[in-house]
Amino acid sequence: MSNPTAAMIVIGDEILSGRTRDSNMHHLAGQLTEAGIDLKEVRVIGDEHGTIIAAVQAMSKVYDYVFTSGGIGPTHDDITADCIAAAFNANIDVRDDAREILAEHYARSGTELNAARLRMARIPDGAALIDNPVSAAPGFKLENVHVMAGVPSVFQAMVASVIPTLTGGAPLISKTLRIERGEGDIAGPLGQLAESYPLLSMGSYPFQKDGRYGAHIVIRGNDDEQIDAALAELEAAFQ
Amino acid sequence: MSNPTAAMIVIGDEILSGRTRDSNMHHLAGQLTEAGIDLKEVRVIGDEHGTIIAAVQAMSKVYDYVFTSGGIGPTHDDITADCIAAAFNANIDVRDDAREILAEHYARSGTELNAARLRMARIPDGAALIDNPVSAAPGFKLENVHVMAGVPSVFQAMVASVIPTLTGGAPLISKTLRIERGEGDIAGPLGQLAESYPLLSMGSYPFQKDGRYGAHIVIRGNDDEQIDAALAELEAAFQ
Repeated sequence: MSNPTAAMIVIGDEILSGRTRDSNMHHLAGQLTEAGIDLKEVRVIGDEHGTIIAAVQAMSKVYDYVFTSGGIGPTHDDITADCIAAAFNANIDVRDDAREILAEHYARSGTELNAARLRMARIPDGAALIDNPVSAAPGFKLENVHVMAGVPSVFQAMVASVIPTLTGGAPLISKTLRIERGEGDIAGPLGQLAESYPLLSMGSYPFQKDGRYGAHIVIRGNDDEQIDAALAELEAAFQ
Repeated sequence: MSNPTAAMIVIGDEILSGRTRDSNMHHLAGQLTEAGIDLKEVRVIGDEHGTIIAAVQAMSKVYDYVFTSGGIGPTHDDITADCIAAAFNANIDVRDDAREILAEHYARSGTELNAARLRMARIPDGAALIDNPVSAAPGFKLENVHVMAGVPSVFQAMVASVIPTLTGGAPLISKTLRIERGEGDIAGPLGQLAESYPLLSMGSYPFQKDGRYGAHIVIRGNDDEQIDAALAELEAAFQ
């Protein structure tokens, strides 16, 4: 009865060094929540063979779906495809279907399909390609791992084509009540409410803006009526 | 000779559901890089006892420093402090030094220091407090784990007071060359350059903006002269 679970692996030294601000995690999180799939864990790791292989093996065993972003371009530091193949003991080489997509794309712009660009056609045996309407070079799915690009516009396009292929659960309903009181005043009644609605999850997210302060109380669950009842109780407690 | 290593644990259901966009990871990453400390891994996990304890135990063994953000407020879903204590088998209770800080802060604003707010004075035995100049409630350091708030302004203030206490390494030098050519054209010469400078790390980050495209090539290392020599070779290759 519980929702399918998911994990994400963000691959890239540039995120860990602070050079680049990741935005793919936030995008995927929102898309999965809408689809009724629970994102349980995200790991951000560097461009290192052993680290990537270990993370893929560990997380693909524990979660229903795994998504990666980054490291599938043409340069020497793009090692994700080879690591995914290694993680599943799959053979990897330039594959005809991927090469054809690239050849057609580069022919259109009169660009040479050189050795570096051909690296982007390296796809593990048995993997299904993921469409890239932005810049052609495909992602792929092997076992339960979806391998996607790090460039946000490409990542988002790939997510859009992957989401409809996943088996989702009951979409999580989430409603928010804004209470202009200190979190310390809200905490007591909120804690009691959480105990009397064990099937709902309740979070408190403080804000402070333009001289006003308080917290957004977010109540999440699958039962709309229960959420409304809990919200009404909470609202009554702070009138 | 290599730099100290670090990991971060971002704790919060609201990040994984896509409700909130994390900004603390990017901030900490930049601060650590400046200090010569290598951030090797970030994990984003939910507000669950077992998950938090397992992550803290695993990562505090592997890395020199661990930093957490989130889950140290007054509400029932703030369980980080208790999980850190459990991870190290430390006793935890309201501690006099932390209670005094809160009492003084709330007395100033005429706010009651009730049971919920007192939860923020729960500090494990043996932990050192981390100053919170924004909203008083302290973070703490236990073993090699620095426990900090999730609210970005508070997190940043805590990081500012923690960084000078850490032993850093040689600050990483990072220089960037912008090349207006397709990554597929850059990849060959860049790969050869990376092989002839094994002590430097080179990354390629493609961009596409206002009808222009190319890549930023980032060369990182500790030896300024080597970096400049490599940059000059790369520049010459694309003139």
